[in-house]
Amino acid sequence: MFPKNTWYVACTPDEIEKKPLGRQICGERMVFFRGAAGQVSALDDFCPHRGAALSLGYVHGDTLVCGYHGLAVDCDGKVASMPMQRVGGFPRTRVFPVVERHGFIWVWPGDPALADDTQIPFLEWHDNPEWAYGGGLYHIKADYRLMIDNLMDLTHEAYVHTTSIGQDEIDETPVNTSVNGDTVETSRFMEGVIAPPFWQAALRYNGLPADQPVDRWQISRFTPPSHVLIDVGVAVAGKGGRDADPKYRVRSTVVDFITPETESSHWYFWGMARNFQANDHVLTQTIRSGQGKIFGEDLAVLEAQQKNLEVYPDRRLLMLNIDTGGVQSRRVLDRLIKAEQATSVEPA
Amino acid sequence: MFPKNTWYVACTPDEIEKKPLGRQICGERMVFFRGAAGQVSALDDFCPHRGAALSLGYVHGDTLVCGYHGLAVDCDGKVASMPMQRVGGFPRTRVFPVVERHGFIWVWPGDPALADDTQIPFLEWHDNPEWAYGGGLYHIKADYRLMIDNLMDLTHEAYVHTTSIGQDEIDETPVNTSVNGDTVETSRFMEGVIAPPFWQAALRYNGLPADQPVDRWQISRFTPPSHVLIDVGVAVAGKGGRDADPKYRVRSTVVDFITPETESSHWYFWGMARNFQANDHVLTQTIRSGQGKIFGEDLAVLEAQQKNLEVYPDRRLLMLNIDTGGVQSRRVLDRLIKAEQATSVEPA
Amino acid sequence: MFPKNTWYVACTPDEIEKKPLGRQICGERMVFFRGAAGQVSALDDFCPHRGAALSLGYVHGDTLVCGYHGLAVDCDGKVASMPMQRVGGFPRTRVFPVVERHGFIWVWPGDPALADDTQIPFLEWHDNPEWAYGGGLYHIKADYRLMIDNLMDLTHEAYVHTTSIGQDEIDETPVNTSVNGDTVETSRFMEGVIAPPFWQAALRYNGLPADQPVDRWQISRFTPPSHVLIDVGVAVAGKGGRDADPKYRVRSTVVDFITPETESSHWYFWGMARNFQANDHVLTQTIRSGQGKIFGEDLAVLEAQQKNLEVYPDRRLLMLNIDTGGVQSRRVLDRLIKAEQATSVEPA
Repeated sequence: MFPKNTWYVACTPDEIEKKPLGRQICGERMVFFRGAAGQVSALDDFCPHRGAALSLGYVHGDTLVCGYHGLAVDCDGKVASMPMQRVGGFPRTRVFPVVERHGFIWVWPGDPALADDTQIPFLEWHDNPEWAYGGGLYHIKADYRLMIDNLMDLTHEAYVHTTSIGQDEIDETPVNTSVNGDTVETSRFMEGVIAPPFWQAALRYNGLPADQPVDRWQISRFTPPSHVLIDVGVAVAGKGGRDADPKYRVRSTVVDFITPETESSHWYFWGMARNFQANDHVLTQTIRSGQGKIFGEDLAVLEAQQKNLEVYPDRRLLMLNIDTGGVQSRRVLDRLIKAEQATSVEPA
Repeated sequence: MFPKNTWYVACTPDEIEKKPLGRQICGERMVFFRGAAGQVSALDDFCPHRGAALSLGYVHGDTLVCGYHGLAVDCDGKVASMPMQRVGGFPRTRVFPVVERHGFIWVWPGDPALADDTQIPFLEWHDNPEWAYGGGLYHIKADYRLMIDNLMDLTHEAYVHTTSIGQDEIDETPVNTSVNGDTVETSRFMEGVIAPPFWQAALRYNGLPADQPVDRWQISRFTPPSHVLIDVGVAVAGKGGRDADPKYRVRSTVVDFITPETESSHWYFWGMARNFQANDHVLTQTIRSGQGKIFGEDLAVLEAQQKNLEVYPDRRLLMLNIDTGGVQSRRVLDRLIKAEQATSVEPA
Repeated sequence: MFPKNTWYVACTPDEIEKKPLGRQICGERMVFFRGAAGQVSALDDFCPHRGAALSLGYVHGDTLVCGYHGLAVDCDGKVASMPMQRVGGFPRTRVFPVVERHGFIWVWPGDPALADDTQIPFLEWHDNPEWAYGGGLYHIKADYRLMIDNLMDLTHEAYVHTTSIGQDEIDETPVNTSVNGDTVETSRFMEGVIAPPFWQAALRYNGLPADQPVDRWQISRFTPPSHVLIDVGVAVAGKGGRDADPKYRVRSTVVDFITPETESSHWYFWGMARNFQANDHVLTQTIRSGQGKIFGEDLAVLEAQQKNLEVYPDRRLLMLNIDTGGVQSRRVLDRLIKAEQATSVEPA
């Protein structure tokens, strides 16, 4: 169950640098490639000739050539040519609206007529010299909504990520969840605490004392279909927290784009954007590597949870205050999916 | 098809020494752990909060703490605490009756009200200075009853285990099967034979001649649900066989506890208890290693058999005299399963 | 969907040299072995006693002895003996007609009464000092008919095998397909072209110029159930092509025997027979190794195509002139399958 009339992150530019990329998204097998001018296209990964995977083929000019018998499809899904064939009457290949923006390739798996690229979220860190970004991709065998739950409740940091970003005060501090239209926001503020290892390192990198009390914040923000951006940081205690003068604080954005593959698996694009020491590429790599390890810990937890829910599909789960972020996010999704179903007319 | 109101071997103490153990038994996902005083508990491996696997968590005092959000369940399945939550109204977690005895952890997957620990078999070798025990565990992708068949008819030793305990006389000697209530016993006595390699080594270890004729016996004893203890040994020929003066014989007990995981897979706890040279730990390791190899040969045979039975589910099998032990054991199981179904009332 | 009253290649002699071979063919689990005089037998790979895989057993005289309890089946499927048992009333094991001929073991999975070994194709290269043969076997997770399509249209060489036997002229040259009874033949003739790398090497091996124009031909011939023999070669341009004086040409036969395992997987026996430098065993190995690499490229394409067709089972494919060979071959198969179903009476 996922909305289809919406933008998902499909891949990152490096994934289509050298050859086409085949990737299943929302149940659809898609192929992504760049045309002659560098523009990205997304097609059904299914050659209209005999069903071969177009992603095993190669790009020629503005066409994707099937690696089996040479049928070439252009970026509009029209068959451009095939050796020795008149292709005028050949069926078109399905084209998925696709946009490259802010460092990601975005795809719209639903009705192309509704695709509106102004709905793609603005990512302030991209192409911004004051920011640096590093991230990665995990394939996770779990319903994508389990990942949304995970990120809309950071209480788990105290348990899953004990050696990096977890600290006791996390689960001792209440969270607040607010809903504003389709946006859900969960926030937690911890005042006068000692920073956990990850943040101590970040403080040191910024010339701030790592062993002094800080005010720490975490603000998870869900927007449909499954984007969770988390504003996180620490400030020298008593300086205003999140609103402190930048010289007293360290702040970054945890980036999570969650793309369903099937009903029970998803692609998880994770990363961190920071607006301090943006030119320190070694730091970017260090953070990226640490974050990759931290988020890998979630992977095992989610896959075991998925398996449990499959073995016991009828068990009811609790919905506590800490779950409100996930519950509200799922409510937004349910509403969007229902609205889609109401308006969609199945093809005859 | 397995009885549930009965005791199965769940694990060995070393498996829960350092952290909780998640294991599926009779279709139920269970977690085993030790509380503060060392006592073992078994719970649903399913956190009542969001369905995470409790086995990925950790033990704190007498509670098992979920590694996802810190919900702590006590040994009675009651939620003891959760950070920032009032847990009074939280649903209980299912508790499985569990007993540590004779070197194993035993679990009762069925109705706890019926659990009676006097039904756990007495294992004379445990904590007995005159005995030594070594064993191991295999996971086998086959119906647990195929393993019972295997062990209740040792004819296969002549074929599967040709280089260790097999010998031609095995399949030349008739077997006798007797049923006494729920106990099934199959015995074979070979008189005046030359011992196979395994027993020649055992004879030498005991200062007995390895190249002289011996009387050899094998007595497989099935008790529900799936325990097969096999009294095996050799004695200098003509000295009384199994009843010979201990100085003329070498004797041990092959230990087999078979625990269904699903309908088509099981956990196989195998081992050997011997009451000679009980303090020779090197010998224990040597026997254990040899037995592990021998029993690994059965594994391939059983998994191929399972696959065959799945491809051809309607084929009828033969039931020969050598199969009587397995057939009678299955008859006991069928009766127990039927009795359980007659008395159980499904929850509404 | 495959015909069963027909001969398939089951295995090659080397596969049953040392021990019995278990192989699933047309959904049936079979075991192949040689009796005392070297003759090959094929039986159900299912011991009538308890369903163990006979292929895990061993050959004794003219019987196959089950490795579990020693039941011995003879080449006619009759139980010959079992230790301590009277086997007179034991059910017979199913026997599959099997013939060793022309370097292969052929099996007839259908009604034995209809098996007629004159239908096994004659392979001129076998036991013929003027010919050499080298080949191999791949297991491919795709409907066997996708492989027939593949071989009955060599256009794909231009795309899949670009560095060996592919060349641009392939897809610039029309193909002709003819049907003659159950035989389908697709041919392509390229005149005055430069040979691709594989054929350049072959020309050099034969003392012919590799850099001069040649006439090249490819004639794929399908015969039921799934044999595709391809007459391929090059001749010095203008010397008569396929009919040129042998001193001006290099010619060989690409050998493809395709044996369904299940509805969605098959065994692919590939090879090449050549009638030049037949005694050069190093050359045989070189060609074999090169061909193995080339045909391995098809494997990835076919498995991805199979997956696509499973995800989108309702999509209609195109049937172009280049597909005529495959389409006509499938038509032959459909006719044969339908005829089988019309005459077969299901066992009660």
